[in-house]
Amino acid sequence: MDTNHLLINARWIVPVMPAGVALEAHALVIEDGRIAAILPQAEAAANYPSASVINRPEHVLLPGLVNCHGHAAMTLFRGMADDLPLEQWLTQHMWPAEGRWVSPEFVRDGAALAGAEMLLSGTTACNDMYFFPDVCAQVMAELGLRATVGMIVIEQPTPWASDVADYFDKGLAVHDQFRGHALVRTAFAPHAPYTVGDEALARIRMLADELEVPVHMHVHETSTELATEDGRRPIARLDELGLINPQLLAVHMTQLTDAEIQLVAERGAHVVHCPESNLKLASGFCPVGRLREAGVNVALGTDGAASNNDLDMLGEMRTAALLGKAVAEDAAALPAAAALEMATLGGARALGLEHEIGSLEAGKSADVICLDLSGTSTTPVYEPLSQVVYAGSRDQVTDVWIQGSPRVVERELQTGNLEDIHARAQGWAKRIRDAANG
Amino acid sequence: MDTNHLLINARWIVPVMPAGVALEAHALVIEDGRIAAILPQAEAAANYPSASVINRPEHVLLPGLVNCHGHAAMTLFRGMADDLPLEQWLTQHMWPAEGRWVSPEFVRDGAALAGAEMLLSGTTACNDMYFFPDVCAQVMAELGLRATVGMIVIEQPTPWASDVADYFDKGLAVHDQFRGHALVRTAFAPHAPYTVGDEALARIRMLADELEVPVHMHVHETSTELATEDGRRPIARLDELGLINPQLLAVHMTQLTDAEIQLVAERGAHVVHCPESNLKLASGFCPVGRLREAGVNVALGTDGAASNNDLDMLGEMRTAALLGKAVAEDAAALPAAAALEMATLGGARALGLEHEIGSLEAGKSADVICLDLSGTSTTPVYEPLSQVVYAGSRDQVTDVWIQGSPRVVERELQTGNLEDIHARAQGWAKRIRDAANG
Repeated sequence: MDTNHLLINARWIVPVMPAGVALEAHALVIEDGRIAAILPQAEAAANYPSASVINRPEHVLLPGLVNCHGHAAMTLFRGMADDLPLEQWLTQHMWPAEGRWVSPEFVRDGAALAGAEMLLSGTTACNDMYFFPDVCAQVMAELGLRATVGMIVIEQPTPWASDVADYFDKGLAVHDQFRGHALVRTAFAPHAPYTVGDEALARIRMLADELEVPVHMHVHETSTELATEDGRRPIARLDELGLINPQLLAVHMTQLTDAEIQLVAERGAHVVHCPESNLKLASGFCPVGRLREAGVNVALGTDGAASNNDLDMLGEMRTAALLGKAVAEDAAALPAAAALEMATLGGARALGLEHEIGSLEAGKSADVICLDLSGTSTTPVYEPLSQVVYAGSRDQVTDVWIQGSPRVVERELQTGNLEDIHARAQGWAKRIRDAANG
Repeated sequence: MDTNHLLINARWIVPVMPAGVALEAHALVIEDGRIAAILPQAEAAANYPSASVINRPEHVLLPGLVNCHGHAAMTLFRGMADDLPLEQWLTQHMWPAEGRWVSPEFVRDGAALAGAEMLLSGTTACNDMYFFPDVCAQVMAELGLRATVGMIVIEQPTPWASDVADYFDKGLAVHDQFRGHALVRTAFAPHAPYTVGDEALARIRMLADELEVPVHMHVHETSTELATEDGRRPIARLDELGLINPQLLAVHMTQLTDAEIQLVAERGAHVVHCPESNLKLASGFCPVGRLREAGVNVALGTDGAASNNDLDMLGEMRTAALLGKAVAEDAAALPAAAALEMATLGGARALGLEHEIGSLEAGKSADVICLDLSGTSTTPVYEPLSQVVYAGSRDQVTDVWIQGSPRVVERELQTGNLEDIHARAQGWAKRIRDAANG
């Protein structure tokens, strides 16, 4: 037995690069955690006669999904305060709840629930912004999920840090702790233009350059934040501070002038589109079609479970594909292949990981997911790619590999105790409910 | 053993009426196919000591979902022509494909796939518009799914009928065939204002009155249909013909003036919202919030699988809830309870079946669905109702009863051979693909 090679024979392989392609009856060859080749099955069998073989005869292989914006631990607040506008939701519900409950134990249990949910629904990499990022990073590493965790900065005290200097100190310590980690990276995560001052942003600009890390920030989420004291729109202010650049992941971006779209394109900044959160909080519509036309790389994120309410990137991709057409007033806008690219390679690019993940290409890490298309809702199959985008669902994810190692096998999580993860989440919900009731 | 009574003990019961309520640790009592009572579990056990008992300890019971607009047999065209605008999709793809392929056998196999998909995802009643409605009705009756099938009328020949007189004759024969059927009803289904003339519409108006059946019609789906030869907007024309009335299910309605919303409200007509189809075809946004504010009953439909691409009413409900807020620019618009009502009781009202189905109330038919909320994506649970709407998924549907009889038990279809249904659908796809390629 050639234990160095694994062949996955699938009915279809959608590599994302080249775009729009679905290879039929091919095998994906994995060697030492990397994609060695994608070949017709007969050829793969001949070339690798002693490899381990996994057969997925009614399935499609895709690159793992990249969730470019979330607050993992907030799964513990899932559905706690629905049907409220952003400001009221944030200031009257989420911030008080966070002040009361967030702790390393809370983040540990919430991140584990989020990580399990993401793996089981085909997400292999996430970009997180939350308190105690070291705890989140540790949990994701144990689950074997790639995570970029945010060195969060916000001009108000939270259970994680007392003031801006403390946020920087703690964030940089997390960066040092995970330097060179196989799965964990860090990014600066200033909360939003309206909660972080110029001095802190200037320091982030300098440190992000030095450390070569992304900057992950909510930008132009709602029209409310456009009414600034000095009349400058936040994007103009961020640009003056040098932050509109290829390191920036600007999340939400529902309020954009043509000139701002042009600026973002020229500067090479990335936009992270979170359609379900934007819809649920009535924040506005991100002009995804116009951004892509201008050449902007658009990635996808679920946002946190308190404003979505799940971390299902397949569902998010579908919502993005559907909504993108309606907002562009063009049914040919954002076709299935473009939506899939946003959910995979677009995310990889935004995180600076496009040489490692985001497509199934020889040399890249074997971050691969497998969906069973034999279910009633995806029968018959004319075009596997559009079938995944328009009729696929999280329950069809059967297998997940990251760096060639199995994380989910036949719908079972391999790297965590799901029963225990659920029990701990239910324990938090009971404590939170009991406290609210008296 | 008291075989007349069945108790279903569930963690939660969301009856829809009264609105917004989730009863905890209650039992639903079924007697002779009808809901006899909803009681605390201990009380139910005491009152019905010899009843059959089913325990669903981590589950929520809901009324079955009512899919108020579809073209069931089009599941066989699922994903065949994606990412195209409505007119091009209809005239260059769907109509030619239908001319070539639609037959009683096609409708039989397509409707079986659709019926299976709907039952497995929690839909217990559907409103269909397609050729060979007798075949669709027969298939749905065999599956045990409630169906209102359309007596379709369109001013062009199709494989079903040669001219308008032929459509009426064949439609009325279907009406007679299923008169008094326990599960099947009929409705007139004139395709759209732009494909049916005044004479036929006037006749439909008269016959719908006589037969006491609904009228099911695409109305104001896109802005294109507003450019009529005589300059009248289609709704004005339909109103002059007396068709804007409580029997009308006006489907799509993305193009509405304030005066038209007022007119629809005054006339008591029903609107069927199909958000995913409207998004995918970039047809426009139905003003659901304004319609509901004006007092219009709004129901939900998936539309056909060729423009959605699934028949998943849970997904449709979620899209409606999310999109309704964004379109109303108000995160408090269309709260979870309102979305659930649209997907259940709203549909029942539109079909004139509100005394029989649409909510879990004593005396109504036991059309009940059960969802398991113990999955990772719906853990923890604060509010079961909003959890279903914002985080639920078709894979969580475990059981379906219609008229108290099991249609799905622990995710297995009871009333059809799923393997055979899939094989027949794949056979059609192969023939259609082969013909296109050669």
